[in-house]
This record gives sequence, structure tokens and C-alpha cells, in this order.
Amino acid sequence: MPLPSRVTLVEVGPRDGLQNEPRPVDVATRIALVDRLAAAGLPVVEAGSFVSARWVPQMADSAAVLSGLSRRPGTRYPVLVPNMKGFDAAMAAGADEVAVFTAASEAFCQRNINCSIADSLDRFAPVCRAAADRGVPVRGYVSCVLGCPYEGEITPQAVATVARRLAEIGCAEISLGDTIGVGTPGRARGMVEAVAEEVPVDRLAAHFHDTYGQALANILAVMEAGIAVIDTSVAGLGGCPYARGASGNVATEDVLYMLDGLDIGTGVDLGRVVEAGRFICDALGRGPESRVARAMAGGSA
Amino acid sequence: MPLPSRVTLVEVGPRDGLQNEPRPVDVATRIALVDRLAAAGLPVVEAGSFVSARWVPQMADSAAVLSGLSRRPGTRYPVLVPNMKGFDAAMAAGADEVAVFTAASEAFCQRNINCSIADSLDRFAPVCRAAADRGVPVRGYVSCVLGCPYEGEITPQAVATVARRLAEIGCAEISLGDTIGVGTPGRARGMVEAVAEEVPVDRLAAHFHDTYGQALANILAVMEAGIAVIDTSVAGLGGCPYARGASGNVATEDVLYMLDGLDIGTGVDLGRVVEAGRFICDALGRGPESRVARAMAGGSA
Repeated sequence: MPLPSRVTLVEVGPRDGLQNEPRPVDVATRIALVDRLAAAGLPVVEAGSFVSARWVPQMADSAAVLSGLSRRPGTRYPVLVPNMKGFDAAMAAGADEVAVFTAASEAFCQRNINCSIADSLDRFAPVCRAAADRGVPVRGYVSCVLGCPYEGEITPQAVATVARRLAEIGCAEISLGDTIGVGTPGRARGMVEAVAEEVPVDRLAAHFHDTYGQALANILAVMEAGIAVIDTSVAGLGGCPYARGASGNVATEDVLYMLDGLDIGTGVDLGRVVEAGRFICDALGRGPESRVARAMAGGSA
Repeated sequence: MPLPSRVTLVEVGPRDGLQNEPRPVDVATRIALVDRLAAAGLPVVEAGSFVSARWVPQMADSAAVLSGLSRRPGTRYPVLVPNMKGFDAAMAAGADEVAVFTAASEAFCQRNINCSIADSLDRFAPVCRAAADRGVPVRGYVSCVLGCPYEGEITPQAVATVARRLAEIGCAEISLGDTIGVGTPGRARGMVEAVAEEVPVDRLAAHFHDTYGQALANILAVMEAGIAVIDTSVAGLGGCPYARGASGNVATEDVLYMLDGLDIGTGVDLGRVVEAGRFICDALGRGPESRVARAMAGGSA
């Protein structure tokens, strides 16, 4: 299959990224980050999470983040909701797109969101119905699609089954996440092909972690399988605190550099993303995990 | 084209890597590094350079390195030679394979080896003749195949011309190097396809730097174009001191992880490469630039 001529980047740094950074960032900084990413041309910027602040203190006050945004016409600002309570809070805060999160691994689902995969889907079904009533799109995340820190290998069929169920309950888009970053291009492509037999590939997104440096090669491989929506995280923010050595969402800058080189349109300005990354890294007191950002800063990669 | 079922990794860390590290490493450590890499199953380990120690102090005493190796049957230990004087010294030291180094960019060639591309080829022709007389294989490096820090873009045709000339004077294998790491998969594949019209693809090797994080994606792309010999550097040692932000040979560990995942045979043991990387990084007083090495150590990526 030829590569897509256009790819939609879903920027997950302000939610998936910051939620997994050890140091919480204040509301004003989170608003400024989302605004900068949107101004860089990113069409979708995940803005927060309506999970209990007891569990995820980094995402506290996401309502204040949402209400403080300079909403850019055409930009989407989804927020994560774990259940109806979270959904209602997100609606009250003015969210116009939401996301739900489950796993392809029973053990990971239990440890991460404290229920079985089936229970998670039962919890999301009313969210999807309520969202449909309001015309609010729902994105479904499936984690551990290429491996689980507790179960090891995950079969493509297990991923396909969860993805199909998410589609059936009403998720408009399903993001397939290699949470621990163990995937390689052949397995990534095979997994996407298996899922695409259950859910049309234009409803699928790919979400890779660069833990083992494989993310860009995997993205190239799944684009060859028809994927045209890719999750990325500015400066490589975040990761997964539940798995050893599993930090490292793929950096938006690195993906964008590759897509620019492949003449794949995104509408995103690399220089402005690098600036946004520098801004949030300064706030976090650390350097970027993006090789492009480091090379453009003149440092060593 | 299907991916190759088997790939030959050419380990360049002890030469290309260490030569570009700011801190010189003593002969005993260099010998131990080469021996560990060979013991890990790497079929080709570049062991040193017979360039003047005035220019490259990190490669001083390469004769002592060669004579101190526990030569493993079947392993090849090429050394870099800049001219006949270097070739003679390499032969006297017992080298049984040599490499020569030029560029696809005139400006880079001038600044790096102080002569034109044509002059460099004139210098290498007698080396190739003398090597042929002794049955010694010669490897030719072409640098800046996807961009030059001084000239910017380099055309695939410029690379193809230099590669053809190297083949004509007798180089058995031509390594195509993206010295400043700016390449992306489409351009990398296009460059290889252009060169393969002049030199059979089974005589070509790919040499990528991970400066912008693109190396693995590029390697995947050029393997799809028929490349089955790949240069890598343990722990991502080295880079290019002549170009801003250009450090970062692709790490052997990261490439091997990808190839293992793709079921592409190499005969190399990843765990032992990681150990060799830890050994040399301890000697250099720095951490590995391999994400696989960092993930396997349990650190953050």
C-alpha cells in the first residue's frame, strides 16, 4: 500500500505526556502548552483528563485548563474520561471530544484501571451513548497492543477483539498503543492488519513509545498498512509508570521530521513544535527526549 | 521487495565510533572492546585506523590493537587506511581487510580529508591494486550521501557516481553514509535505488546516524530496497565532529532489536552487545546512546 499523502497527528503530550511526568505542572503552564501546540498547527491536542486527582494529580484542574484555552477554530481538544462521572464533568467544563482507555491485556487492565476489559467496555458504553446524544466524538485507546509487562506477548486477535468492541459501542476512532514500546515493524504491521479486518483502517490510529527506539520504524510500517492518524507527544513527554523502563512516548518532533521528509502533509510547523517542547521542558526542569529537538538545539543526539 | 532473511552487521564502534569520541581510550580497552564485540557474534568489527595520530589521536597505536586481538575464526577486522602509506602500515600490522573513505560532497571531502573527491579516488586506486595483489578486500565509504553540512542537499546521482568509481577501482563493498543524519526513509530508499543502478545492491551497505532519530526507519526502508549489510556502532559511539549536532552513529543494540523482531538473522547476541556497550561506556565515563541499552538497564529512554 502506498504511504498516505496526509497524516493527522494527535498530540498527546499535555495529557498522556504530563500525566506520566513525575513533576506536576500548574494550570497556567498547561494552558500555555496546549495553546502553543495548537498554534503550531497540530489539529488535535489532548488537553486533560477527568480522572480523580487522587489517582492522577498531574491532571488535576483539567476543567480550568479547558476553560482557559484560546480555542483555535478547527482544532480539537479531546479529554480523557474514565466513566459517566468523568464524562459529565468534561461536558460541564465545555469539552467537545472525549477519550476512553482500556487494554488488550487483562492483567494490565486490572492493574491500570482496576477492572476487567469487559467491565471497562460496560463502563464506556453509556459514555458513548451520552456522547452520541450530544454529537460528541469518542476516541478509544487500547493499550499493550504489542506486549504487556505482566502477560508478555499479546495476540493481534486479542487487540482486534477489543478494538471491534470499542467500535461497536460507538468509538469513532481507536488508538492502538504499544504501551511498553516493545514492538518492531513486522509485528506492528501484522497487528494493524489483523485489527483492520475488524475495524476499517481509516478509523484506526497508531500510538507508539520509543522505549526501544523502534517507534519511527513502526510508524513507517503501519503507514504502509494504511494508518494515517498517529499519536505523538511533544518532547517525548511521558510514558507509562506501570512498566519498568517504559517511559518514552514517541516525540512529535521526530515523527514530524520524518513525515516532512516523506512529503506527507500534516499542516504542522516543526519549528513551533520544537519551541513548545522547549517551553514545557523548561517548566519540567529537564531536556527534551526528542532527537530532532536536541539536534536543532546544536547539542549531541 | 521483501526484507532480507539475513543481514550482515558491520560494527564500526571501535573505529568510527571511538575516533569521534572526545576522550581517547587506551589500547588494552580498545582490544577488549573489539574482542567482546566479536564474541557477541558480530561478523565484522572495524578495529582501527592507520591515519596519522596527529590528526586522529583516538586511533593511535592501531597496530598494537590489531596485534593484541584474540582473532575469532570467521570474524573480519577491517581497518581504515587513507593512502598507500597507511595501507603498508596496516599490512605490516597484519590487517586482512581495509577500508577507504571519501564523500559524495566536494566541500565535505575537502574539509574532512583535504582533497577533492577525484583526488581521493586517485589516492585509493593504488591501494586497491595493492590490496588485490594480496587478496585483501577493500571497503569504500561514501559520506554525506543524504546531505552535507556545507553544501546542503546531495543528489542521488552524485552518490551513484562516487560509488561506481569506488567499485571500478576495486572496492568490494561500498558503504553509503548519512554522515549528518538528516535523511528520511523515502529519500534514503531513493538514493539506494539510484546507486543500485550503478553498483549491484549486494555490494552496497547502509550507514546511518541517529542524529534526528531517523536511522531505524531509514534502515527499514533501504532493506526494502535490497540492502542487507548495515553499519552500526555499539552504544551509539561516535559521530562526526565536522558537523554541528551530527553525533550519533545508530546504535548496534537498537538495530539488532529491530532485526530480531523482524526475524532477520544476524548471528549476533543482543545481551552480549549490550554488555560490550556498558564496558566501553564505563571506560568513556558516559551512558549509552542506545535506547535498547537504556531500557534493558531499567532506566528511562
